Amino acid sequence: MKFRTTSIAIRGFLILPILAIATARAAAAPADTASVEQWGVFDQSFSGPTVGNPFAEVELSARFTSRDHAVTVHGFYDGNGTYRVRFMPGRQGEWTFTTQSNCAPLSGLTGSFHCVAPTDENHGPVTVQHTYHFAYADGKPFVLIGTTSYSWTMQPDDIEEQTLASLKKSPFDKVRMCVLPGGKPPLFYPYVKDAAGKFDPSRFNPDYFHHLEKRIEQMGEQGVEAELILFHPYHKGDMAWFDDLDVAADDRYLQYVVARLSAYRNVWWSLANEYGQVKNKTDADWDHFFQLVASADPYGHLRSIHNAAKFYDSNKPLVTHASIQNGSAVADFGRAVLYRELCPKPLVYDEVCYEGNYGARWGRLTGQEMVERFWLGTIAGAYVGHGEMALAPKKSSWTDAGGELTGQSPARLAFLRKILEAGPADGIEPIDEYYQTHFGGKAGEYYLVYFGTETPTSWRFALPRDPPQKLALTEGMKFHVDVLDTWNMTITPVDRVFTTDKLAESVFPAVGDGTIKLPGVADIALRIERVK
Amino acid sequence: MKFRTTSIAIRGFLILPILAIATARAAAAPADTASVEQWGVFDQSFSGPTVGNPFAEVELSARFTSRDHAVTVHGFYDGNGTYRVRFMPGRQGEWTFTTQSNCAPLSGLTGSFHCVAPTDENHGPVTVQHTYHFAYADGKPFVLIGTTSYSWTMQPDDIEEQTLASLKKSPFDKVRMCVLPGGKPPLFYPYVKDAAGKFDPSRFNPDYFHHLEKRIEQMGEQGVEAELILFHPYHKGDMAWFDDLDVAADDRYLQYVVARLSAYRNVWWSLANEYGQVKNKTDADWDHFFQLVASADPYGHLRSIHNAAKFYDSNKPLVTHASIQNGSAVADFGRAVLYRELCPKPLVYDEVCYEGNYGARWGRLTGQEMVERFWLGTIAGAYVGHGEMALAPKKSSWTDAGGELTGQSPARLAFLRKILEAGPADGIEPIDEYYQTHFGGKAGEYYLVYFGTETPTSWRFALPRDPPQKLALTEGMKFHVDVLDTWNMTITPVDRVFTTDKLAESVFPAVGDGTIKLPGVADIALRIERVK
Repeated sequence: MKFRTTSIAIRGFLILPILAIATARAAAAPADTASVEQWGVFDQSFSGPTVGNPFAEVELSARFTSRDHAVTVHGFYDGNGTYRVRFMPGRQGEWTFTTQSNCAPLSGLTGSFHCVAPTDENHGPVTVQHTYHFAYADGKPFVLIGTTSYSWTMQPDDIEEQTLASLKKSPFDKVRMCVLPGGKPPLFYPYVKDAAGKFDPSRFNPDYFHHLEKRIEQMGEQGVEAELILFHPYHKGDMAWFDDLDVAADDRYLQYVVARLSAYRNVWWSLANEYGQVKNKTDADWDHFFQLVASADPYGHLRSIHNAAKFYDSNKPLVTHASIQNGSAVADFGRAVLYRELCPKPLVYDEVCYEGNYGARWGRLTGQEMVERFWLGTIAGAYVGHGEMALAPKKSSWTDAGGELTGQSPARLAFLRKILEAGPADGIEPIDEYYQTHFGGKAGEYYLVYFGTETPTSWRFALPRDPPQKLALTEGMKFHVDVLDTWNMTITPVDRVFTTDKLAESVFPAVGDGTIKLPGVADIALRIERVK
Repeated sequence: MKFRTTSIAIRGFLILPILAIATARAAAAPADTASVEQWGVFDQSFSGPTVGNPFAEVELSARFTSRDHAVTVHGFYDGNGTYRVRFMPGRQGEWTFTTQSNCAPLSGLTGSFHCVAPTDENHGPVTVQHTYHFAYADGKPFVLIGTTSYSWTMQPDDIEEQTLASLKKSPFDKVRMCVLPGGKPPLFYPYVKDAAGKFDPSRFNPDYFHHLEKRIEQMGEQGVEAELILFHPYHKGDMAWFDDLDVAADDRYLQYVVARLSAYRNVWWSLANEYGQVKNKTDADWDHFFQLVASADPYGHLRSIHNAAKFYDSNKPLVTHASIQNGSAVADFGRAVLYRELCPKPLVYDEVCYEGNYGARWGRLTGQEMVERFWLGTIAGAYVGHGEMALAPKKSSWTDAGGELTGQSPARLAFLRKILEAGPADGIEPIDEYYQTHFGGKAGEYYLVYFGTETPTSWRFALPRDPPQKLALTEGMKFHVDVLDTWNMTITPVDRVFTTDKLAESVFPAVGDGTIKLPGVADIALRIERVK
């Protein structure tokens, strides 16, 4: 993810505003030399005042226009007299901008750039598609295989580089990660201290955010989405005061983060982790934060909030998808699908206990159990998140701090990714979920039959009738079957074609003997694809 | 359920309104002779005009006051020149009323009555208690064991009397039932025909409602709640036109039904059965209907809407509880509990497939399966509904038309009722539901452990730790255990007391060997109660 940075120096700051504007205009980079790819970052800096508290006192925005299209974005103070506006153009062609500010020298500044076609690996931000699924802005399906690494951007550089390398080798394309430090004393702080040595909640530390941005950008270059957790209940020590910010400071923090980061196409907003345990915030506060983030972010990046102790109502219109902590919901058949009816949005079971050997029972899944949860979520038309806690001989855990992935599940989740990427572009939907809890797919075209911990030695071909009004599956269709060993990562084709016979008892059996021999071990699935 | 009916005759109808009022006042029954029990029905009739269409043209309401308390109720036209106001007093003491009407002779009429203590079997209307449960207005827990009999009030008298007798012998204390006729040509019609022989959607048939009211009243006398389904998608033949009522006619229908029936304490409102299949109504219409029913019913009777094809968002504030069609949700462990988090209201899985030998797969549960669904819902802190389809040698089904109950489940559901009535007054809550899907109860006091189709030959005493912040269960508590055979309806006490040992791996085992011998058959549960 590359982005174009230009700079406008405003000289003669304390002279008459009208002159300052003229000067500024003269300093704008010529439009014909600046180009940014679609969904890239156009980054424009301005020199400005350092007096007072620019974080709290200076308002800056810019209106970007391209033909009949206009987008207004908030700017932010980046320290040392530098102000900045970032913009992610969603259309190709010429764009011009004009700034507005309550600080006259920063107002009325203009510039332009040319937005060119995206490079091959740039598909734009991820959006909701087909109600329960995701796709990039260019239409490419987004096959979500997420993980969690809360504080990976707050570690020593070598660990962070290791995390990026781990992600590169992994199947993971989204990381849940905190914007703010948590339990352990961080290496950097997002705020600066005042003269008395006390943190000033109205003065951000730009270096902290430069670092975070660098990591988000690197994730983007690797094709990984950054799900940014804006609040969490884990502030301790030096950061404990953050729990007691007043409403104005909470709002200022959110506005600053959204102004800085929303131009990165791989950003998702998670309003909070385990929000029910965040002190001093009410449901009305969370409603307000959703409003604030949605109105400050002109791109509509995905928005969710993660539960513990209680559930935020994900049916509320500003929540784009459900972010669910519930390991039990993906621990057996017929569970994960239930939330779909109450919440017709993408369901991401992104905390389902972790693979590891941790003391607490939520950090002790075997690799098999982790992988089974992904498959159980997948056939239910949902998505599941990975995590890893303290696998020996490590001292710190991937899910806390990143570094190395040592569990057995990532390789198997890469196998799942391969299957899903070759599957229906619309995503996997449950099939006849009130009766046939082992099926997912796309009726009439593609089926996954998953057996979990069951160890069948055979399966008799029979595809469930889809709801009567749809009739995608009928008699006389031909299907190819592969036996998938989801743990040993093998695909074994069945050497015959199955033809659907007459509907009987709500399923279409195969003509003749539809018996398929299975290996009698756990973690087997069938992939059944229509042959045309 | 007895109610007091009084009558006010308005003579001299077409003379000057002022005189009519004076006449009417003179005709009011003396206050000191009228008494109604708390939550009984005060029923006041008035003679009035028959010209035009009183159903559509005459508005009538009455304001009832008792000390500082006032309730306004809508009246209705009952045919043959009779207007009626019904009122369910929620407080004991003196009540007076004054009518208001756009028909002058019906306006300003007054009367009074004395509200006395309720009789033993009258506990008032059912309300939501403890978030997920129900209780009567007087605080008595309402242990919901419901059934469905859609059209039982539209049958020949002998069948309807048989239905009442069946209910009397049964464990069922709520019946889902339609206000309007469905598929088969009804014996009565809720509307009358105009001169051209066509149904007039602005003229109700009071006889239809007299009959329905008689049945609701008889249910009340037997302690059975009437969950009245206001709309459904099954209109055929003579009634097919009802699907095409315009908004005004829909509203008039709801207002009429609520004015007539809301004074019966055992009424619940189900806005629709399988609402997603009701033609020509949008989500906005259903929002509007909830508003209308909630504002027309001064008592706040329970309100829900039943799904098919799509889910209405039961988190909306006017929905008092979720009414869910989903057999799969109560067909295995760990499922039913999931809706609790998304919808913190009582969850009633009131259509979970039916016991029977019907052709379609939703009407073919065995008695065991029906009973297992009740237990699986119960331990998840939810409620389940019974139904019965065409058990041989019957031609019609209980769930369609009432009559005789011939299935094997009702007797076992009576056993479940006995267990629940002796259980915690606050209702059964899930216990450690993310990990221990077999447990329900009240932490530290009472546990049900249910095994469903599993056939364990022993169980080792171990109670899950409740959430850390609660600590209702601790070391050193003493418990008695009963082995329940939920199918054979036996209770076998275990002849020892179990004492909780130190917390180990998130459970409290028993001191010593906590092994309990079990019979190795299906449908076993344990009841574990604290001994103080």
